[in-house]
Amino acid sequence: MAEEEFDVTPFDVEGTVDYDRLVEKFGTEEIDEELKQRFFDLAGDENLYVKRDFIYSHRGLDKALDEYEDGDDFFLYTGIGPSGPMHIGHIVNYYFTAWIQRKFDVNVYIQITDDEKYWDRDIADEEVDENVRDNVREVAAAGFDPDKTFIFRNREYMGNMYDGIVKIAEKVNNSQVKGVFGFEGSTSIGMNFWPAIQSIPAFFEDKRCVIPAGIDQDPYWRIQRDIAEKFGHKKTAAIHSKFIPALTGPEGKMSSSKPETAIMLDDGPEEVEEKIKKHAYSGGGDTLEEHREHGADLSVDTSFQWLRNLLLDDDERMREIAEKYSSGEMMTGEIKEILIEELNQFLEEHQDRKKNADDLVEKMMYEGDLAQDMWNRNIDLRLER
Amino acid sequence: MAEEEFDVTPFDVEGTVDYDRLVEKFGTEEIDEELKQRFFDLAGDENLYVKRDFIYSHRGLDKALDEYEDGDDFFLYTGIGPSGPMHIGHIVNYYFTAWIQRKFDVNVYIQITDDEKYWDRDIADEEVDENVRDNVREVAAAGFDPDKTFIFRNREYMGNMYDGIVKIAEKVNNSQVKGVFGFEGSTSIGMNFWPAIQSIPAFFEDKRCVIPAGIDQDPYWRIQRDIAEKFGHKKTAAIHSKFIPALTGPEGKMSSSKPETAIMLDDGPEEVEEKIKKHAYSGGGDTLEEHREHGADLSVDTSFQWLRNLLLDDDERMREIAEKYSSGEMMTGEIKEILIEELNQFLEEHQDRKKNADDLVEKMMYEGDLAQDMWNRNIDLRLER
Repeated sequence: MAEEEFDVTPFDVEGTVDYDRLVEKFGTEEIDEELKQRFFDLAGDENLYVKRDFIYSHRGLDKALDEYEDGDDFFLYTGIGPSGPMHIGHIVNYYFTAWIQRKFDVNVYIQITDDEKYWDRDIADEEVDENVRDNVREVAAAGFDPDKTFIFRNREYMGNMYDGIVKIAEKVNNSQVKGVFGFEGSTSIGMNFWPAIQSIPAFFEDKRCVIPAGIDQDPYWRIQRDIAEKFGHKKTAAIHSKFIPALTGPEGKMSSSKPETAIMLDDGPEEVEEKIKKHAYSGGGDTLEEHREHGADLSVDTSFQWLRNLLLDDDERMREIAEKYSSGEMMTGEIKEILIEELNQFLEEHQDRKKNADDLVEKMMYEGDLAQDMWNRNIDLRLER
Repeated sequence: MAEEEFDVTPFDVEGTVDYDRLVEKFGTEEIDEELKQRFFDLAGDENLYVKRDFIYSHRGLDKALDEYEDGDDFFLYTGIGPSGPMHIGHIVNYYFTAWIQRKFDVNVYIQITDDEKYWDRDIADEEVDENVRDNVREVAAAGFDPDKTFIFRNREYMGNMYDGIVKIAEKVNNSQVKGVFGFEGSTSIGMNFWPAIQSIPAFFEDKRCVIPAGIDQDPYWRIQRDIAEKFGHKKTAAIHSKFIPALTGPEGKMSSSKPETAIMLDDGPEEVEEKIKKHAYSGGGDTLEEHREHGADLSVDTSFQWLRNLLLDDDERMREIAEKYSSGEMMTGEIKEILIEELNQFLEEHQDRKKNADDLVEKMMYEGDLAQDMWNRNIDLRLER
């Protein structure tokens, strides 16, 4: 199926966010057809999220692929903010990161921000620890290579990376972090220091770091890009995703503390069914007549958006759903049933892997090849003074 | 010799700094006769610096002594900023701290700020390392108990104290450190975070921390005092010294990079003699006649100030020098000879101890009783949330 077709079919309808404007605002680049094809060719496979333009923008991905073709591969970096149980919106980025890892056979570093959590909110030690224990198992279940993935708690790994952090913190000043993060007088000095800690994993290897993240997080890496070359390192590349609409519709955000807005990763099949039937925002007509006449507005329909962006890999089936639902032939109840089925299948597999994730976690944190290497390293940076 | 006498004799003449104003400005308290006597009584000895009011102000020393009398002793905390070779002005505070340790049999923690140095100036790794190696040997030579003293490099010990630092950094904000340290937009985020790292040793024990330091450094501990009780800890106490005038006179500051202003700790006897004869600022008359008529102005005379504040313990002899020199009977050349003799004796002994300090350093950093305890500890703080 050629991309041109997508552009004129409802299949390609996005949510209500103006993503072109975000690309312009942040000064990133859209992943065009050529880059997409090159990415798939080098991966030897297609990726659902990229195929559907859910992952749609980048910074320096072309350079990372150039280097990869020249035999100089990249490494991946992402993070875990242990703020609570995770929902479907939290996990997608890890699945994507693990996919890149498997296809390109590269290292992944996952920073658990168990220090930043204290600066971000009022949280007790026990809660942070419990969240970490739970979240690493969710993440480990996303398909990472346990010998090429290092998951570390900042508070535990700090002794191995503080030398490098000191050098970063020398070269970034208060005005810069205020500009990027909007810090103020009432900001804790911990949070104000945070950009130095967040940047260090991008220096873990002497290769290009590639960060898969939401488009809104792009500015955070400006700090690393500003200083990387002073330390003889490459600027990080990034691959940006769009936002996943809340169950309750495109205006809201999925939130673990508002159960109706999100599917939690440990929701059971009945819970999923009930939540979707009750809360999934419908773009369908208000009455049967209206729906049959005008069809559904796919751009605001959560079931359609989730299926299209995250779950349903079969292009022909997706196209059929888009056509039937937008024409009014398919009812909201029907597309919800499809979402329930796809989501429960995904969750069942994920939950199975999570149940058996203890060994994976142990490897990724301490015993795997990369983890062992990392615990024997001292991360330092050398300024070209 | 009663204190009242000092108050009306030139013996008690201080430099040109208005130290009363500093006490008022910082809101500290002068060490009065009663507290001084109590301090000496509990120490079982007198201390030169305190006796001569070179150490003259405090915050909470009375409380620390109350607790000490109740069987709840305190601990001492000071730091080493590895910015270069050390001069006589750098070492006095360590001698005083070691004296308190020996007399009160308490633990001492000495933080080597090998992280802050990068935020304070442009400095190469090799220079920091060399300064640390040299400075710890100077400090170890000041008479600390190797089993009750822990000297640690921040960059090396960070892994053991980061948990606690995270909690401090949560409770201190940008406005506070701006107010105390005058940080600005151009301040590095490292330096902006520094108060959290500087504060943590004051939480190393669940007792009162006592910090001997220059009066000008008092505000830096306001941060710790503001937050201590939130963590169920006591506010730090402090004992404040006056400033040591430069060799070249009370207007200047001793600086390792301006050799004429300072006696370096590794200066040899001839170097000391030459520097003092050539550069020691004299309060004597411009001509022999003037000097015989008006005598010397002790308040600006470096030789007199150094002897009085730092070196000459013999009260009778000190009084004699003060009287003869201020009356014009003693010439500048004569008091310089006394300073040369006293200083060279001090330096010879210090340099001998430094030469043999390797074992002491090893104990204070790694192998002594306290050091071993500290390397087995993880320093954390618990907010009363």
